Amino acid sequence: MSPSPSSPPTDELAREVDVEELTGAELAECWPLLDADERQRALSLLPRREGEDLFLTRATPEQAELLLGLPADERRAWLRLLPPDDAADLVQHAPPETRGSLLDLLDPVTRREVGGLLAYADDEAGGLMNPHYARLRPQMTVTEAISYLRRYAREHREGPYYAYVLDADQRLVGTVSFRELFAAEPGARIADIMRKELVTVSDDTDQEALSRLFEAHRFLALPVVDGEGRMKGVVTIDDIVEVVQEEATEDIQKMGGTEALDAPYLATDFFTLARKRAGWLAALFLGEMLTATAMGYFQQEIERAVILALFIPLIISSGGNSGSQATTLVIRAMALGEVRLRDWWRVVRRELASGLVLGGILASIGMIRILAWQLMFKPYGEHYMLIACTVAGSLIGVVTFGTLAGSMLPFVLRRLGFDPASASAPFVATLVDVTGLVIYFSVASFVLRGTLL
Amino acid sequence: MSPSPSSPPTDELAREVDVEELTGAELAECWPLLDADERQRALSLLPRREGEDLFLTRATPEQAELLLGLPADERRAWLRLLPPDDAADLVQHAPPETRGSLLDLLDPVTRREVGGLLAYADDEAGGLMNPHYARLRPQMTVTEAISYLRRYAREHREGPYYAYVLDADQRLVGTVSFRELFAAEPGARIADIMRKELVTVSDDTDQEALSRLFEAHRFLALPVVDGEGRMKGVVTIDDIVEVVQEEATEDIQKMGGTEALDAPYLATDFFTLARKRAGWLAALFLGEMLTATAMGYFQQEIERAVILALFIPLIISSGGNSGSQATTLVIRAMALGEVRLRDWWRVVRRELASGLVLGGILASIGMIRILAWQLMFKPYGEHYMLIACTVAGSLIGVVTFGTLAGSMLPFVLRRLGFDPASASAPFVATLVDVTGLVIYFSVASFVLRGTLL
Repeated sequence: MSPSPSSPPTDELAREVDVEELTGAELAECWPLLDADERQRALSLLPRREGEDLFLTRATPEQAELLLGLPADERRAWLRLLPPDDAADLVQHAPPETRGSLLDLLDPVTRREVGGLLAYADDEAGGLMNPHYARLRPQMTVTEAISYLRRYAREHREGPYYAYVLDADQRLVGTVSFRELFAAEPGARIADIMRKELVTVSDDTDQEALSRLFEAHRFLALPVVDGEGRMKGVVTIDDIVEVVQEEATEDIQKMGGTEALDAPYLATDFFTLARKRAGWLAALFLGEMLTATAMGYFQQEIERAVILALFIPLIISSGGNSGSQATTLVIRAMALGEVRLRDWWRVVRRELASGLVLGGILASIGMIRILAWQLMFKPYGEHYMLIACTVAGSLIGVVTFGTLAGSMLPFVLRRLGFDPASASAPFVATLVDVTGLVIYFSVASFVLRGTLL
Repeated sequence: MSPSPSSPPTDELAREVDVEELTGAELAECWPLLDADERQRALSLLPRREGEDLFLTRATPEQAELLLGLPADERRAWLRLLPPDDAADLVQHAPPETRGSLLDLLDPVTRREVGGLLAYADDEAGGLMNPHYARLRPQMTVTEAISYLRRYAREHREGPYYAYVLDADQRLVGTVSFRELFAAEPGARIADIMRKELVTVSDDTDQEALSRLFEAHRFLALPVVDGEGRMKGVVTIDDIVEVVQEEATEDIQKMGGTEALDAPYLATDFFTLARKRAGWLAALFLGEMLTATAMGYFQQEIERAVILALFIPLIISSGGNSGSQATTLVIRAMALGEVRLRDWWRVVRRELASGLVLGGILASIGMIRILAWQLMFKPYGEHYMLIACTVAGSLIGVVTFGTLAGSMLPFVLRRLGFDPASASAPFVATLVDVTGLVIYFSVASFVLRGTLL
């Protein structure tokens, strides 16, 4: 990259960089701007310690890319820097044919742990969990606990945020935060200062539920326990920030009518991008073809009153727009846990009322527009009032249908076990287009029968 | 709420609750399901300490609601539980007429701090920052530092995650994480173990940039410094998880063509919800009216070849769908910092190519459909081949235009200082509908002149 003096001033973070002149911290900041080769070069140019810090703080896909970009004999030292949960993530992100050789680079103990973690899905608590955590016994004094934690810290690169108090059967009986440990009387027993009200997750808790728990409790880490309450590991908040962003990105991409991308937009190669878009686009197109079929049924009506054709885009788009609004609001509320499946009836009542109000507003605007044009240009002939009524009536029907369909589709998808976010704006718009035509021509044949039709 | 035996099994977290039987931790979990009255009652039923913990872990809008729901003479003790940054957030979320009386409840020192924080916008580092943090001197030994931090922890409810090393002018010279402090030799000097490569933010760093820094560095807290490097406070990761969710929710709502809601969907009252949707919907409707105007210009063509009207919804919707995809991908990539303003030319080239490929795919499907129908039902008359070419040519044009317009609109909005997320799917669809009609009828008059037109 070369310096570009014309970089636009409103983009505050925009800055062309020369990787050779940067410190590790500066590199971390401009990292997203570099391509794979520049990253590899930047890493090799940094002092070892800074390079290690940079590597440790990268997101998993980049860690995998960086590691696999190194000569085979340098990989071991870098891979062993990682705590087991991050090593497992990295191995999972590496191409399948390289995984075995990566696992071989680990020491036998870690390899067994990582192997265990690999058995979990990437998006479950088990897959995000670190099997190392600071464990205390209820009988310890605060002073003993602190001196144990000092030893623990010397041996581990991550955490600890909380210490976990286990009984002789490895069952979790309490937690102590560092703040509480520091604040306690030196001679107090852990059993007396620990919190016994535990919030725990199991190893198959999915990451959306996990992120909601972190938000609800503002914890820095949550313990993962098995069915008998035995402690298996911890999930820490720094992984959750990444998870929350990833989940939102996936939902947003699906809601825009694309398959979720696995990599940043500019880093996704052209054919992958086109493929992820073409699938949905073609499916929607096939659905949308029903509009041509529907219009075929109404061809005679259009021939008799071409004027009706003028309002087709206006009416079906209004249905699509109101459907997009409703589906987006409901999908997001579901993702945040604000709306559950059994809330469907509350949502139906709300959206039915919203649809009628919003449809009424658009109908009024549409009516004013037709009457105003008629006054000025007389384009609609003697039956302009009937045409205005047809358009207004159709708008109320189409917007109400769009709103209801858009709000219910995420419920239906979830009930059937699909991701509600697939109820994308384009999907709802396509659904509403076909129905919108039927509504429009039905209203028209009712209002205009005997005059225009 | 009463127990409902019919709650659907797929909704794993769904559970009807009786607030009187729950512990604080259980209440926290089902909190989103309760309405304001049930929350207030639940809080009053809990033992004081559990109630306080629950209150402390709520999101700010709920803390404000809970506090204002209490009798006036009970509010002081609850408000004073909060660290200054959270108290400032709460005051900012309270109705303006109650803010003065809330500030009066604080002790004079905190009131001054909160007053200072209130001067910052809610979505800047300054507004999220806690002015309390653990500060060390470079000359301290590790043992001295640990014993100071034990005192600190006794006096503060939040953190600390890191200790900040300041010189005599309050300038930040280094940071020490707890792990590092614990791992160091007891007699070592802080100056020798602290990290001197600092990542800092200023008090007007906006929260989107903040969350990107937290993601890039996996820090638990970031120091806020002024122009001279003097330490002003810290922003901690637990606030960032909330920020990331909020930002994503706002973007998603805008991308669905609604104004961002300030509260959860079901907690937003009906008229606020309708108002936030009606604005954009009416604006889009006014824009969409241009389609009726455009169709007016092509009325003669439609009268001569009604067959053309049949494909109008199909063609304009395909443009809208491809535009939705493109705008969604670009908006999200911008929000994540993957795409900057100056990347616009790379995006144009990519999306131009995508548009042509996607348009080509849809055109082929459309062509096959028309030829197949003609073979089976003969609905399109003798010029069916010309009609098929018109539809196919228009699809390539409309999809390419939709893709380009959808991908460029976020750049234009950002360049003009607006939020790129306003380039919602419905906005792009409306824009493309009008242009799509013009493209379709232009292609038609070129291909069909002398035959059907």
